[in-house]
Amino acid sequence: MHLPKLFKTENFEILKEIIKNNSFSNLIIYNEKILTTRAMMLLNGNENDFYIETHLNRANPVARKIDAENEVLCEFLGVHTYISSSWYDHTNVSTWNYEQVQIYGKVEFMNDIQLYNHLNKLTNIYEAPQKCPMTLEKMGKEFVEKEMKGAIGLNIIPTEIKIKQKFSQNREEKNNVRIISHLEQSEDIMDKKVAKKMREL
Amino acid sequence: MHLPKLFKTENFEILKEIIKNNSFSNLIIYNEKILTTRAMMLLNGNENDFYIETHLNRANPVARKIDAENEVLCEFLGVHTYISSSWYDHTNVSTWNYEQVQIYGKVEFMNDIQLYNHLNKLTNIYEAPQKCPMTLEKMGKEFVEKEMKGAIGLNIIPTEIKIKQKFSQNREEKNNVRIISHLEQSEDIMDKKVAKKMREL
Repeated sequence: MHLPKLFKTENFEILKEIIKNNSFSNLIIYNEKILTTRAMMLLNGNENDFYIETHLNRANPVARKIDAENEVLCEFLGVHTYISSSWYDHTNVSTWNYEQVQIYGKVEFMNDIQLYNHLNKLTNIYEAPQKCPMTLEKMGKEFVEKEMKGAIGLNIIPTEIKIKQKFSQNREEKNNVRIISHLEQSEDIMDKKVAKKMREL
Repeated sequence: MHLPKLFKTENFEILKEIIKNNSFSNLIIYNEKILTTRAMMLLNGNENDFYIETHLNRANPVARKIDAENEVLCEFLGVHTYISSSWYDHTNVSTWNYEQVQIYGKVEFMNDIQLYNHLNKLTNIYEAPQKCPMTLEKMGKEFVEKEMKGAIGLNIIPTEIKIKQKFSQNREEKNNVRIISHLEQSEDIMDKKVAKKMREL
C-alpha cells in the first residue's frame, strides 16, 4: 500500500469500522508462491491489544501452506470510487478515492474451544439481522463438531498496521466541494458513501 | 484461492466481465515481504493472447520492489454477498457467495509510447460517462509528459489464470430457489447482483 503522510491515519475507530463493514476480506500468505484466500475476519480486542480471528476450510491451499513462522497480510478495502478530473476547476489527473486497512501479523492456530467461540461469534453477528437467526445450538452438537473438524481456526497477531484514507485531502476546499457534490448527485450507493466520508474528514 | 472443481470456470467472458467491472483491484507482489497496491487494471487482448496493463506512482513501494523476475498476482473480486443458512430447508453452515479472478504473471515494463496509450485508453473508458469527459489532449502535452515521468507502466503477462464462481452450485434446486428469493427481496444492490448471477448459472 502506498501510504503518503497525508492519507495516513492511526485512528483505531476507523480501522474497526472498515473491518466490521468488510469482514469478507483478503488473507494473503507467501510460501514459495503468493497465495490468497477470502475469509471472514473479525477483530478481537481493543486499540492496545487486538488480533484478527478467522477460519478456513482445511482443503484451502492457504490452510495447507500457512504456518506460524511467516508473516501474513490481512487486507480490508473500505468504501471506494472513481474521482473524475473533469470535476476539478483545473487540469489534473483522475484518481480513485478509497480507504484501506492492512494488518501484517503472525499466525496462532486456535484450539477447539477458541474455534467454537469464533464460529459462535461470527454466526451471532451475521445471523442477527435474519428473520429466523441460525445459531450453533440450533445446528446441534454433532453437526457443529463435524464442521469444526473440516475447519482450521487462526488468530493473527499484528506485527504492523496501516490505515489509509485517501479522500482528496490533497485538493483545496473549492475542489473538494465540487467532488462531494458530484458524488452526492450520483445514483451509485458507493459514491454517496465516499461523499459522506469526505464530509466527515 | 480455494478452487473446488464445482466452482471453477474457464469462461473467458466471465473473466472479462469481472475485470471490466472491478478495474480498481489488487496487485500483489512478494519481495522479502508481501506488498500490495490497489491499481487500475485493464485487460488487453483476447482469450488466446491477453495481458493486464496497469500503472503505478513511482513512489509506491510496489513500484520500487516489483521486478521482471518474480511472479506477481492480480486479483479481482466480483459480486459477493452473505448467504444465511437460515434460508435453507435443512441444517447447514452459512457461507459467502462470490466470484473472483486471479491472474499470476510476469511483469514487463512499458516504454513511453505504451504508457501513453495505456493512460489514454484508461482515461477514455472512465471519462466516457462524464458530462464533460477529460482527455489527454485537453490536459496538454506538457502536463501529460510531467505526469508520465512520475508513473511506471506495467504489462503483466499471465502465467496462471483462475476463475471462480461460487454461487451455491452445491445446493439442490429447491434451496437455490430459496436463496435467490431472499437475495432478490433484499434492498442491497449487491444481493440483487448475486441473485442475477445465480439465475444465469
